[in-house]
Amino acid sequence: MPIDVYDPAPLEPGTLRVIPIGGLGEIGRNMTSFEIDGKILIVDCGVLFPEEHQPGVDLILPDFSPIRDRLDDILGVVLTHGHEDHIGAVPYLLKLRQDIPLIGSGLTLAFIEAKLKEHRITPYTLQVKEGQKERLGPFNLEFVAVNHSIPDALAVAIKTVAGTVLHTGDFKMDQLPLDHRLTDLREFARLGTEGVDLFLVDSTNADVPGFTPSERLIGPVLEDVIARAPRRVIVASFSSHVHRVQQVLDAAYANDRRVALLGRSMVRNMTIAAELGYLRVPEGVLVDFKKAGSIPDDKIVYMSTGSQGEPMAVLSRMVNMDHQVEVGLGDTVILASSLIPGNENAVYRIIDGLTKLGATVVHKGNAKVHVSGHAAAGELTYCYNILKPKNVLPVHGEYRHLVANAKLAVETGVPDANVILAEDGTVLDLRAGVVRKVGQLDLGYVYVDGSSVGEITDADLKDRRTLAEEGFISIIIVVDASTGKVIVGPEIHAKGFAEDASVFDAVRPKIEAALAEAAQNGVRDTHALQQIVRRTVGRWVNVAFRRRPMIVPLVIEA
Amino acid sequence: MPIDVYDPAPLEPGTLRVIPIGGLGEIGRNMTSFEIDGKILIVDCGVLFPEEHQPGVDLILPDFSPIRDRLDDILGVVLTHGHEDHIGAVPYLLKLRQDIPLIGSGLTLAFIEAKLKEHRITPYTLQVKEGQKERLGPFNLEFVAVNHSIPDALAVAIKTVAGTVLHTGDFKMDQLPLDHRLTDLREFARLGTEGVDLFLVDSTNADVPGFTPSERLIGPVLEDVIARAPRRVIVASFSSHVHRVQQVLDAAYANDRRVALLGRSMVRNMTIAAELGYLRVPEGVLVDFKKAGSIPDDKIVYMSTGSQGEPMAVLSRMVNMDHQVEVGLGDTVILASSLIPGNENAVYRIIDGLTKLGATVVHKGNAKVHVSGHAAAGELTYCYNILKPKNVLPVHGEYRHLVANAKLAVETGVPDANVILAEDGTVLDLRAGVVRKVGQLDLGYVYVDGSSVGEITDADLKDRRTLAEEGFISIIIVVDASTGKVIVGPEIHAKGFAEDASVFDAVRPKIEAALAEAAQNGVRDTHALQQIVRRTVGRWVNVAFRRRPMIVPLVIEA
Repeated sequence: MPIDVYDPAPLEPGTLRVIPIGGLGEIGRNMTSFEIDGKILIVDCGVLFPEEHQPGVDLILPDFSPIRDRLDDILGVVLTHGHEDHIGAVPYLLKLRQDIPLIGSGLTLAFIEAKLKEHRITPYTLQVKEGQKERLGPFNLEFVAVNHSIPDALAVAIKTVAGTVLHTGDFKMDQLPLDHRLTDLREFARLGTEGVDLFLVDSTNADVPGFTPSERLIGPVLEDVIARAPRRVIVASFSSHVHRVQQVLDAAYANDRRVALLGRSMVRNMTIAAELGYLRVPEGVLVDFKKAGSIPDDKIVYMSTGSQGEPMAVLSRMVNMDHQVEVGLGDTVILASSLIPGNENAVYRIIDGLTKLGATVVHKGNAKVHVSGHAAAGELTYCYNILKPKNVLPVHGEYRHLVANAKLAVETGVPDANVILAEDGTVLDLRAGVVRKVGQLDLGYVYVDGSSVGEITDADLKDRRTLAEEGFISIIIVVDASTGKVIVGPEIHAKGFAEDASVFDAVRPKIEAALAEAAQNGVRDTHALQQIVRRTVGRWVNVAFRRRPMIVPLVIEA
Repeated sequence: MPIDVYDPAPLEPGTLRVIPIGGLGEIGRNMTSFEIDGKILIVDCGVLFPEEHQPGVDLILPDFSPIRDRLDDILGVVLTHGHEDHIGAVPYLLKLRQDIPLIGSGLTLAFIEAKLKEHRITPYTLQVKEGQKERLGPFNLEFVAVNHSIPDALAVAIKTVAGTVLHTGDFKMDQLPLDHRLTDLREFARLGTEGVDLFLVDSTNADVPGFTPSERLIGPVLEDVIARAPRRVIVASFSSHVHRVQQVLDAAYANDRRVALLGRSMVRNMTIAAELGYLRVPEGVLVDFKKAGSIPDDKIVYMSTGSQGEPMAVLSRMVNMDHQVEVGLGDTVILASSLIPGNENAVYRIIDGLTKLGATVVHKGNAKVHVSGHAAAGELTYCYNILKPKNVLPVHGEYRHLVANAKLAVETGVPDANVILAEDGTVLDLRAGVVRKVGQLDLGYVYVDGSSVGEITDADLKDRRTLAEEGFISIIIVVDASTGKVIVGPEIHAKGFAEDASVFDAVRPKIEAALAEAAQNGVRDTHALQQIVRRTVGRWVNVAFRRRPMIVPLVIEA
């Protein structure tokens, strides 16, 4: 469905303009811009991971075009937490202007700084914590603790002369969190009492009924599985999931096992988390991977990446027997993670591969080894009732999630007209408690492929899909520049098309006949000749094989 | 993991040889061959649907090579039920020998006959029903009723001088089935008492704990959703799911709505099912699609295909507004089907698309509108305990499902050594109650793409994946046949590679230099020159863009 694109009117003084740049209509590349009186504040700047219809794409960035010409007006980027879908695009933004200040909690800044180091960027940072207030020009910021699947996540209240906005970032409401750091509903209540004009709220699990179970339920299950494991245990999870790793360390320690961390991002993140005190490492439990081989099989736990079936991660390499840890009979592998939609086939291939190697695989489908990091419908209703926001903008989700969240807002009493279903690029103006949609920008996907950023177009991806589905046939013909006579060819080559090259013997005379006819009609232009070749071969292959490979004709003059 | 391939010894007289040809290590293309005293019986002959790493493939067939040279020895093909993964490859088998008899129940034969009609084949058939016994040469067959997500499914007992085999086909054990046709455990008990030497048993849901709920639970939910729907209702499910359609017809009738069937396969299958009495159509409830438009919105239900997000099916076309039924605000869409792993992204795109059009989407995730067609772990334990088979061969499943099923067999008391984990092409010999693995054939995937069968190789698919991930760069150079001098080129073209064509200006001099060096070294062979071009361009693109597109060099002599 094409969206109705139109430019907003100029922004009036004293009005707050909110533009969701990414994260609406997708799970990822979260980014929102807030502008008032000529100054801009950004909240989050994440990446989106590609789906199978975007082959070869490494990452997808938010489309920076709404702020690209306004870089000098940006006062800062608030990073709500350290997940890739909230911080992953920061290096690409800082390449446009390196000294944009980054504002976030200790762990969040440590994660982004480690990432920026790889890009050889040292950022300007402002470390904040819950309860803290900061003024950035026209923006008065207040940070509120929220609970999520990474420590030290923050919601941010943005107070301006136009009104108050509360942005949750990603959150859930575990009432018994491991680190006792609750989503601060007392602060939500205070802000609500003072009046929240616009509430931007995480929609990821809005269509999941009930309540997300406590992370605390995972520990005993891990401990039990490890206690019963006859040989080695390999636990795979997200490399930023500090609390999950904490529970693995504790469960290993309780079972008199040591733990070796595997995977570059796992080692890097957990080193940071331990240094900053977010990960409490029981005395002597960690062992360097290089020394793990000398520990008896029933005394070791490997903590690795690759729970989503990522081909280059540790777990995939184990399945392909391309890793120093050779999984074998009696080993236990625990996938302590969600199964992100779209990764099912890759993950099931991993489970099958591990099973073939003789391992027992424990996963979400057969044991309670994962809980989500996002608030389900029940939690969101609590949130709405405590906050009582004037207007609601569901963020972070596919369209169905945004709709589900909007429904919850209405059910708790927010007037239907004040619940805004927006898309990336929707321009919203807030003034005197009223939010109006004043424009819709045309924002695209920005693809990263290898070292290229934004060069790949949707047309290229369409070409790639055609090549994948059907392969291509190239036809090369060299004609004499002066006489127009064919000197060489038609030379016909195909890739991904499957049939034996001899099948092309049937079309060669057809091409020659078509070219002869063109010559008789005085057609000499190489582009016109290429079109004739394309049509001739396309028609033949469609009738003979019922297929539509890419036809790449090339007529060259010599 | 490469499997250890070896040829079996010749088959001794009086020994039964069992070869699973398809369905072990995959969900689909189910096919097993049974041979004794020179005669062969086949059970099922289905297709497998491709995954995303098999782009452009329409269908995957079993590899017929174990029986290809033995076609005249085949006495018949027993079809356990009418699903594609059990009957879909029959047309391709009959193209090898048209008069192989097909044996199955009334509905199964009607479905395969309709399919064969499209291939212009009229098969020889033998219709059977539960309780019936048939002798085919050395095979004494007994058919047993089983309950599945399609009516009229059969298990088959195969009695030979070497022993008795029971093959379940696909089944579950709904104790309150809509059509009162239970999986006949009394017959299982009788066969068990007489002695079952080898039990081939459906593994699809062996890793799902507990019991599959009754199909009967769906009806009231459908009725409730339809009763509350303010406008049109569109129900999508599998086109062969007669009982699900029955419940939709009944729920519509109870709500004073009429039903229009949408989609060629839905109309064809339900017409057959109604004619044969498997579908009971309440008086006047069905209405032709062409007349449905004149019925008020709150009085119509559309029953369609496309619940898996198949791009060409009715539901996808509705989302793309390429269907006469224009989904809009207030419509209710029910996805009354499972979400087959691998289809998640496609299905979620459908749900998002329908939500954007204003429809409310009811699916397995938010309402009880689907139950599985396969026995879960609890049901399988009942089955093992009633049957008490000597040997067990888990069939129909990915490797993890086979392992889960094997574990259930062992837990119910089948000796570990008598539970066989096999793969497609494993050769098993049964004699005197003992099953031995005597060989492992090397069976491949047979891909159907357009009108070609078996022409696409795994190498072609690898090419296609490379083309999809990276695109290609072709370099054409025409050299003078007598002097070896370059007349035309290097002409460089790329598809799916993304960068502007001007980037190739940087590599052109490198190619020219490499060719000049080759000329100096007296290299004239065009293949050798192509290798030089490939290496030069490959190295450049890898360094400059960190990518590895397919490099297609072509040096032509003129």
